[in-house]
Amino acid sequence: MSETAPHLHRVVIVGGGFGGLETAKILKGANVDICLIDQRNHHIFQPLLYQVATASLATSEIAWPIRSIFRDRRDITTILGRVVGVSVQGKSVFLDDGTAVPYDTLVLATGVRHAYFGHDEWEPFAPGLKTIEDATLIRRRILLAFERAEREQDPARRAALLTFVVIGGGPTGVELAGTIAELANTTLPQEFRNIDTTTSRIVLIEAGPRVLASYPDDLSDYARTSLEKLGVEVVLGRPVKACSADGVVYGDETLPAATIIWAAGVRASPAAEWLGAAADRAGRLQVLPDLTVPDHPEIFAIGDTAAIAGPDGKPVPGIAPAAKQAGAYVARAIKARLEGKTFAGKAFPAFIYRHQGSLAQIGKSKAVIDFGWIKLRGWLAWWIWGIAHIYFLIGLRTRLSVALNWLWIHTFNQRSARLITQRDELGASKGPK
Amino acid sequence: MSETAPHLHRVVIVGGGFGGLETAKILKGANVDICLIDQRNHHIFQPLLYQVATASLATSEIAWPIRSIFRDRRDITTILGRVVGVSVQGKSVFLDDGTAVPYDTLVLATGVRHAYFGHDEWEPFAPGLKTIEDATLIRRRILLAFERAEREQDPARRAALLTFVVIGGGPTGVELAGTIAELANTTLPQEFRNIDTTTSRIVLIEAGPRVLASYPDDLSDYARTSLEKLGVEVVLGRPVKACSADGVVYGDETLPAATIIWAAGVRASPAAEWLGAAADRAGRLQVLPDLTVPDHPEIFAIGDTAAIAGPDGKPVPGIAPAAKQAGAYVARAIKARLEGKTFAGKAFPAFIYRHQGSLAQIGKSKAVIDFGWIKLRGWLAWWIWGIAHIYFLIGLRTRLSVALNWLWIHTFNQRSARLITQRDELGASKGPK
Repeated sequence: MSETAPHLHRVVIVGGGFGGLETAKILKGANVDICLIDQRNHHIFQPLLYQVATASLATSEIAWPIRSIFRDRRDITTILGRVVGVSVQGKSVFLDDGTAVPYDTLVLATGVRHAYFGHDEWEPFAPGLKTIEDATLIRRRILLAFERAEREQDPARRAALLTFVVIGGGPTGVELAGTIAELANTTLPQEFRNIDTTTSRIVLIEAGPRVLASYPDDLSDYARTSLEKLGVEVVLGRPVKACSADGVVYGDETLPAATIIWAAGVRASPAAEWLGAAADRAGRLQVLPDLTVPDHPEIFAIGDTAAIAGPDGKPVPGIAPAAKQAGAYVARAIKARLEGKTFAGKAFPAFIYRHQGSLAQIGKSKAVIDFGWIKLRGWLAWWIWGIAHIYFLIGLRTRLSVALNWLWIHTFNQRSARLITQRDELGASKGPK
Repeated sequence: MSETAPHLHRVVIVGGGFGGLETAKILKGANVDICLIDQRNHHIFQPLLYQVATASLATSEIAWPIRSIFRDRRDITTILGRVVGVSVQGKSVFLDDGTAVPYDTLVLATGVRHAYFGHDEWEPFAPGLKTIEDATLIRRRILLAFERAEREQDPARRAALLTFVVIGGGPTGVELAGTIAELANTTLPQEFRNIDTTTSRIVLIEAGPRVLASYPDDLSDYARTSLEKLGVEVVLGRPVKACSADGVVYGDETLPAATIIWAAGVRASPAAEWLGAAADRAGRLQVLPDLTVPDHPEIFAIGDTAAIAGPDGKPVPGIAPAAKQAGAYVARAIKARLEGKTFAGKAFPAFIYRHQGSLAQIGKSKAVIDFGWIKLRGWLAWWIWGIAHIYFLIGLRTRLSVALNWLWIHTFNQRSARLITQRDELGASKGPK
């Protein structure tokens, strides 16, 4: 795309998530020509996306234009475009408008979408949470359910409108369920005249035996009892059998519910298909210990795009710090190669993931943290969670703005971003637009 | 809808804009049962909507859930619903789901939409700015035009992508054109690698002889020259003859432009059709001096819904303070009636609009103010404009948040809400989603 001196090594990074951004950042000063491609113009701070879905934060507080992040990096060209394929022979990435973007080194950091275990027909009824649009849609559905309940005369239908089901007991599911419970129990009660929003049922369904399965048992238990105190019904060991406009079927039960949110499974983007390379069951590329694709040392895959084994043999978790570590590793590997460095006569050492800890918020003043060497729960964990997340946001303005919003939620139970906007094809047939 | 004591006088207000909100506010303590109906769940601070369209503010900074504004007013029931008709005999308002909402007094405050002077076919190419969705769509188109220009190889097509046309030289048109110029000239230049965003053409087309026609001549001139200094081409006395995907035709010229924004004309909501009552050319209800509809003393029309003559014989302008004054007047009239008050043996005195002044921002440190007794321009006017607008926002959190954003824009030329989100049917065929 851009005119550059022909001798510069060209690194193409596909995906402006945590992994891709970190690769580009650490490549600073490497004397390479970087092209960063994303199908959206913004990077999202995924760990707080559930707060947009639950009307706590505005979209622009957790999203930044990618080209704005790199405005001072003249070595980076940002392209808003959708990748549709890769020519490994021709060393080119193809965009949906037919453009070919040539690379010398390719970094695939394309992330995941939610997956329905072969039941894609559930998606319209149980949207997942990966993009700003997903978050706005879920926010719309949650808020509209209360609005419709306020106008509904039929008690059964009203009960269904006031039933919110979250499927999947991982961090996103726990955080969503806890925040919806707070919305129903502390933010909204005073505002409706015909319904009592505190009678809402918030049901978290997890197929496995406990919530936050990646955490130690006692933190899982704490999370479950905290959710229950907030008014969330936690259903364990019952896989969901069907989702429809009527509600959710799990075990032998059918639960009528107007709002269903999917936080249960993900599938990697089609990067493996672009390459014709081997992938695991979730579609993640098989990579060598140096995060390159077998037989293609010029192609790296990082973050959720790659199936990476951790030092304990378990897969590296699909969380932001893991993606950032892999991104930084790849950037250093590229630099080392270009500088012709060897390491005691060997190639660049293998990627080793260092787990720094797991944090999840459950509700106001309630969080769990597992740093390995210390486990925390309750208000101290909540403060650490809050400070850590504000720290990792981009820019002082966003930090001040998010802090201001959290202060307001914490002090006044007011959520600022309670807007029902845009159209929803499913919802359009059921009530006011 | 709600169960209320049957003897309470029932006031139904349709529309949660400035007029409807003010009516509800001033009716506090009137011992009436108020029902406030709006087709959206939020009130919008219209005067700053252009700042959402130009990525300066987030949607939630200028919009508040209506039921949240009245959370402490137990006498107000808020309904999210679309009014489709009124039975003046049956004294009921009909919603699109078939619900009938009975009233004793009806206040119509349903506002306007943009109008295309009989050329509705222009709307897809030249969207207007009245709702949050309009603002998000315009923001999307502006930002996407720069993105596409960055990838465009053909110089003519690239030039069209970098041409932004605003039709209509009223306050909204002036504010939009000025802010787009700042976006192109100060916020974006560093961020693109293949285009120079300062070469963008921002063209403001006004059919009349000057911009800000409702202001004194010298302030109009100042506004025009200020716009020109910002890089806006101001075209006067040339009505637009056509808008299409290719651009705009005005006078004898055809201007290829990918982005066109309509700020030229409005048409009142169909309130007059609901009543079968007389309306003016713009669809505004003819009202008596007490703002009631002829032969229907129980029906008031306020704000942009009504054609109201000011003390100077000129029509009352379609601005927030006028709508608020009418709303307060109607609330007091309803109270007086219910208390059986007379005024020296006569009915409630006629509504008199008091023009407090006009304010318009042109760009950074540039604004015009006409208070009648004093006219201001330049940085002092800009500060007064900014402080006045922050003052009229709802809630301390929003005020702090908007002030923070403006501080950032002013100091760093950074605009925080530069997100391309949602789909755009027109745009979808032309590039990345």
